[in-house]
Amino acid sequence: MKVNHIHQRTVVLRGSEVDLIDQPVLPHAFRRVRTANVQQTAEAIRTMVVRGAGAIGATAAAGMAQAAVLASDSQVHPALSHAATVLGNTRPTAQNLYYGIDRVLRATAGLSGSAARDAAVAVAHAVADEDAASCEALGVHGAALLSDGMQVATHCNAGWLAFVDWGSALAPIYKAHRAGQHIKVWVDETRPRGQGARLTAWELAQEGVDHQVIADNALASLMRAGQVDLVITGADRVAANGDVANKIGTYGVAVLARHHQIPFYVALPTSTLALHTADGQAIPIEQREAEEVQYTWGSDDSGVFRRVRTTRSPVYNPAFDVTPAGLVSGLITQHGIFEASADGVRLASQAG
Amino acid sequence: MKVNHIHQRTVVLRGSEVDLIDQPVLPHAFRRVRTANVQQTAEAIRTMVVRGAGAIGATAAAGMAQAAVLASDSQVHPALSHAATVLGNTRPTAQNLYYGIDRVLRATAGLSGSAARDAAVAVAHAVADEDAASCEALGVHGAALLSDGMQVATHCNAGWLAFVDWGSALAPIYKAHRAGQHIKVWVDETRPRGQGARLTAWELAQEGVDHQVIADNALASLMRAGQVDLVITGADRVAANGDVANKIGTYGVAVLARHHQIPFYVALPTSTLALHTADGQAIPIEQREAEEVQYTWGSDDSGVFRRVRTTRSPVYNPAFDVTPAGLVSGLITQHGIFEASADGVRLASQAG
Repeated sequence: MKVNHIHQRTVVLRGSEVDLIDQPVLPHAFRRVRTANVQQTAEAIRTMVVRGAGAIGATAAAGMAQAAVLASDSQVHPALSHAATVLGNTRPTAQNLYYGIDRVLRATAGLSGSAARDAAVAVAHAVADEDAASCEALGVHGAALLSDGMQVATHCNAGWLAFVDWGSALAPIYKAHRAGQHIKVWVDETRPRGQGARLTAWELAQEGVDHQVIADNALASLMRAGQVDLVITGADRVAANGDVANKIGTYGVAVLARHHQIPFYVALPTSTLALHTADGQAIPIEQREAEEVQYTWGSDDSGVFRRVRTTRSPVYNPAFDVTPAGLVSGLITQHGIFEASADGVRLASQAG
Repeated sequence: MKVNHIHQRTVVLRGSEVDLIDQPVLPHAFRRVRTANVQQTAEAIRTMVVRGAGAIGATAAAGMAQAAVLASDSQVHPALSHAATVLGNTRPTAQNLYYGIDRVLRATAGLSGSAARDAAVAVAHAVADEDAASCEALGVHGAALLSDGMQVATHCNAGWLAFVDWGSALAPIYKAHRAGQHIKVWVDETRPRGQGARLTAWELAQEGVDHQVIADNALASLMRAGQVDLVITGADRVAANGDVANKIGTYGVAVLARHHQIPFYVALPTSTLALHTADGQAIPIEQREAEEVQYTWGSDDSGVFRRVRTTRSPVYNPAFDVTPAGLVSGLITQHGIFEASADGVRLASQAG
């Protein structure tokens, strides 16, 4: 997608550096940052300089390649092994993190130093390209659910900033919008990190899609008033039975959608499917620091990016929740829309 | 309740001034402010220097008395009439606003200048005293729903800061806590104004009640995990059929509670009952400015109270929503717990 008419990808491997969009400062500034080594890349994932399923996956693959590029021929495999550990310890819920790491490990297994390095770089680029292509393709499938004049709610940011390009939940909206349909998007703030207010709203504005930001608390009353026709969210991990781990609050949105008989779809490239995770119970839920809730970051009246504290009280801050498959109307993937069930997940993973 | 060992009421009429706790700067500072005339009193209500059902009601009554005190004998009735208009145009959803105004109008009707002034002052004090007494009494009734070790969720601030003393939703918790029971309270942030994170958490800390602040998005997953035994919220207006208008997000919490078969109670003094409002459809919902969602207020790292902007996008910001009576397990009042229904509302209004 374009920012000020220049096409941007969230994650680009450039030689020994990983070039990222600095997401915490959006929408106040648009800037790119580069990591010089795998420790910096892992820190960028952990601190959410880069976040979102596909973007984490591409960054993890790029970080693996980065480690290989920086290693001497004899040290490529130890470097990859070390990088896999460092990167794998950042965001435990994110399936695409492990997908990106594993793709590089599998592509380099059995290869000698320089061949392993070349393979790591090639697969890192491939992971990024496939992510962009999958998201565009799922956007086409998802757009079939939309029609002119619909009002759609989403949660968090599952737009192109969360992937390499196009996004998951927002890709169908972008496709419908470019086809000339008027889609109104309700963008919930997504506290504590504000990915909806900061990132999704910014993306939609860049693309010219009609939208309004709401407090997370306002969505239920919009549903009751008949102002939400459809919900689409992304996913950080989909278990083998169709249970969906996604940004905290997704489960509540799904319950509200069910109560109001509003379809609730989850959009994802199949790289987010976790066939070895039996169900939602088996998905580790990342707990993040209290400061995320105690503080809010933004630009002050002088344009300085800073944080303000709203409370000093103790905090409970899970980063994700699990939506049981039974609340999900369908899984929108690059291969089509599948049932959120063991059968649907198996079919989606075998398609293409 | 006490702040640093000194008993405080949120609203006190002192001669021609209304003495208020300055709520937007909590929990960063505790200070009181005084309004010099009814325009300032109305502005304090509109800008939420004072907010919460009972506190608004007591402030409205005090503002009426203030107008009478400041008027010459011949101008008491015109001053009261003008004050009723100015105060009545501040927060359209708040039933207690009209309750406070009407109490003074009724007490002063047919009285001459100085007698009307004396009556206005007397009834303003009475409204405040009754609010405190009603909240303490409903706390006793509500405490019967609690037992040692329970985990309770609430929304927004319906504690003593929202009333003259004791509060509505929090009064049962204070009573149970003082009786030696351990109650754990999940305090949701309550965006956009953060009354949960800023006010409820501060109140509970002052009283020594165990609590954790959560993003509004985290409540659903706590319910699914079995960590919420009961929900109690306050109300800004209860219609004749038992529908409840309360802070935006309350309806969503009620739907989530129903989905998880968790009791959902609403606590209120009967001054919040609106017998002439047929149902939730007839309750006007206040729309507030976009800035409340676009900005967050707090103290920066130097302790300066300021705002930061998180988004520049357009905003939809309803201040309240309506929870249909069918989702409400019961209405906790100073006269006991009543069914949320036309019968229950009628019985509650006739009790005592």
